[in-house]
Amino acid sequence: MPNSKLVIIGGDAAGMSAASKVRRDHPDKEIIVFEKSHYTSYSACGIPYFISGEVATSEELVRRSPEEFRNKYKIDVRTMHRVLEVDTDNKRIKVLNKEQDTEFWQEYDQLLIATGGKPYCPEHITGYDAENVFGVSTLKSGIKIEQYIRDFKPKKAVIVGGGYIGLEMAEAMLIRGMEVSLINRQEQVMPTLDPDMGVVVSNAIRDLGVTLYLNEELTGFKIEGNKATGVITNNRTIDADIVILGIGSAPNTAFLKGSKIALGVKDAIKVNAQMLTNVPDVWAAGDCTETLNLVSKQHFYVALGTVANKTGLVAGTNISGQNAIFPGAVGTAVCKICKYEVARTGLQERELKALNIEYVTTTITSKTRADYYPGAKDICVKLLAEKNSGRLLGGQILGEEGAAKRIDVLATAVTHNLTLQNIIDLDLSYAPPFSPVWDPVQTAARSLIKKI
Amino acid sequence: MPNSKLVIIGGDAAGMSAASKVRRDHPDKEIIVFEKSHYTSYSACGIPYFISGEVATSEELVRRSPEEFRNKYKIDVRTMHRVLEVDTDNKRIKVLNKEQDTEFWQEYDQLLIATGGKPYCPEHITGYDAENVFGVSTLKSGIKIEQYIRDFKPKKAVIVGGGYIGLEMAEAMLIRGMEVSLINRQEQVMPTLDPDMGVVVSNAIRDLGVTLYLNEELTGFKIEGNKATGVITNNRTIDADIVILGIGSAPNTAFLKGSKIALGVKDAIKVNAQMLTNVPDVWAAGDCTETLNLVSKQHFYVALGTVANKTGLVAGTNISGQNAIFPGAVGTAVCKICKYEVARTGLQERELKALNIEYVTTTITSKTRADYYPGAKDICVKLLAEKNSGRLLGGQILGEEGAAKRIDVLATAVTHNLTLQNIIDLDLSYAPPFSPVWDPVQTAARSLIKKI
Repeated sequence: MPNSKLVIIGGDAAGMSAASKVRRDHPDKEIIVFEKSHYTSYSACGIPYFISGEVATSEELVRRSPEEFRNKYKIDVRTMHRVLEVDTDNKRIKVLNKEQDTEFWQEYDQLLIATGGKPYCPEHITGYDAENVFGVSTLKSGIKIEQYIRDFKPKKAVIVGGGYIGLEMAEAMLIRGMEVSLINRQEQVMPTLDPDMGVVVSNAIRDLGVTLYLNEELTGFKIEGNKATGVITNNRTIDADIVILGIGSAPNTAFLKGSKIALGVKDAIKVNAQMLTNVPDVWAAGDCTETLNLVSKQHFYVALGTVANKTGLVAGTNISGQNAIFPGAVGTAVCKICKYEVARTGLQERELKALNIEYVTTTITSKTRADYYPGAKDICVKLLAEKNSGRLLGGQILGEEGAAKRIDVLATAVTHNLTLQNIIDLDLSYAPPFSPVWDPVQTAARSLIKKI
Repeated sequence: MPNSKLVIIGGDAAGMSAASKVRRDHPDKEIIVFEKSHYTSYSACGIPYFISGEVATSEELVRRSPEEFRNKYKIDVRTMHRVLEVDTDNKRIKVLNKEQDTEFWQEYDQLLIATGGKPYCPEHITGYDAENVFGVSTLKSGIKIEQYIRDFKPKKAVIVGGGYIGLEMAEAMLIRGMEVSLINRQEQVMPTLDPDMGVVVSNAIRDLGVTLYLNEELTGFKIEGNKATGVITNNRTIDADIVILGIGSAPNTAFLKGSKIALGVKDAIKVNAQMLTNVPDVWAAGDCTETLNLVSKQHFYVALGTVANKTGLVAGTNISGQNAIFPGAVGTAVCKICKYEVARTGLQERELKALNIEYVTTTITSKTRADYYPGAKDICVKLLAEKNSGRLLGGQILGEEGAAKRIDVLATAVTHNLTLQNIIDLDLSYAPPFSPVWDPVQTAARSLIKKI
């Protein structure tokens, strides 16, 4: 095993976490990484903050460069190489050298697929490839957007999609001084929240000066020359100098069609808790895999740096010959838009209904600090719990500074089957600059337990 | 039970939480509260922020006034009444009306003792009662300090004691523009932290401009007229225009000596999980009681608003004829001094050694946000875990904005017997404005698990 050849497809969070772990354990093992871009190990989550200008250079988002991996860690990173095909019968992959435009077969003893996700692109809509219409996923796309803003000084930005990326990009465009419109297919932004919490977020975003078009869908672009000058929805045309697409992402697994590697939810790769696929010696990790939801006990698709790092580490540990397990996730996520913080964990009402779980729910408003302490801000907490047992099933938070990270207690509670009474009994920290005497998550639990 | 007479001694957090709960359940029950001061239900924890001027008026610290309890809730609150004696054989208490200087016996059917704590006062040291030497515990003492600062404009403040109150008062005095010295008996401030974390806090406090005298003990005061002009330690005399004593607190139970009510740790009242004392129909709650430590399984003394509110509610629920339990606490606490945040939970090394528990420990430094995100600050996390099982036993945090509230995940973990691996596996929230990809508490767990 130590002297066998590990080949990794994808040089970002999951792939390089695994590569680094294997290198630490096996100093002489051959490790080859094929990465389709120029970059390795960068923070995709940081791209909106580079575009906004809060992060000054794109280099700051790169944790380790290909050169550093090659020279310092003896990991043979080959950038600008795209993998076209996986032939598990012969333990080999077909690789395209993008710079030389040549193809070759690479053999492996162990293979790790860590190709990540890609933003959904409305290829059926003419104009999606106009020079001022951008997806946000790779560092390259981030650099292109930032360059475009500097070169052309757009005044009107239209964001398509009201999820995390959409909200973060709305913030970035506001910071760059643009007039911002946001189109959202659903009746409220943030579809991972329940609609009643979505209303609160929608109102908060309007309060920041964003024009929202809810229940509206992208149907086309108004094109002049190489540029989109308007975004067409089922209801109207919105003037645009720049368009950002944030309409969801999907696993990057198209090249596996026809291989023996089994795909699951949204065509994400099926893996077991060791991150092994259905094919021996083939592992997968990160945004290209499906994830077990610890609350629903069903698989779902998560594209998040936390899960990518964890699953990369677990895959690397197992490839190293040790034993590690990734138990799953509970769908925790957090997002900032200007002064507002939004967070969620566990299941939402839609999912609970689909699972036929009887639940109760409450939403309370409290403060982030003692109400008399300067800077105490409103915080709104929604909890969902199983009707008979009182077991926490999910939580959603909206508030200002200091609100969102409280989701972590709820994520811990959801993961370890704590009840509302358990939450009330928690010895959470209190001093006036940090919290009311009853932390807002406990105030919510006290409110909801009355319905059990 | 509904028509019997409930008498409560003490009108602050625990007493009034219980009174309010009983009133909600029994609209016509007779409830009498004896409170030795003029005030009810105020936030003692907020006093330093009133003294600093961050909270403009002392009224803001009062949640509900005696008049409001009397008029709106029909709770017969009698301020300026001190209880002198409890005679459980005859179900009566002896009360001093402080304004009229008269004594009388009051009968009860149920009694709740919620007399709180009092700051330790060095009565053996001449000068402790000088007009510019203050303890900080009651709203009255806070008002006196604030008034003294306005009237006499002291320039040099000496704080005696480096615990939470000492640190918060040091901040208040800095904000009021004073030169601040702090005397601490132990080798480091914050004795509820391990000394190695105490060093980090000591350095942070020096960085704020506070002069620290460690390993020094108050031995006397230099007195001129009615005022202390210096604080004498075993090593030196420190000039002082105002002196604040923050050398610990103790339960207010002296009046129970000679009664049949059993006392425990530090003379705090022994109670069961229902908050019932050893005497039928006599409950106790808040800072006058001892608390079960859920980690050590031993009783300890906690004087905190969180525990007072919880135990008051539990006592009130049981007095109401329902059934509630207070399981205990894990010693979570948090404190802010200027830009620094300090938090702790669980057991510290000293306690683990005394309990003969084999443990491992690590301290890591990380960032409060993604390192490239503006405002990312250092955070230092120490974890303690059981050597064989990896079960988390305690955590300590020092950092700047956004650091301290992370203790809540550790408090939840300690309470529910989570291991380091459980913490690594938690699906904690991540986005660049809130955290690195691995939350600092997970980075600490990843470091410590290597020692298991």
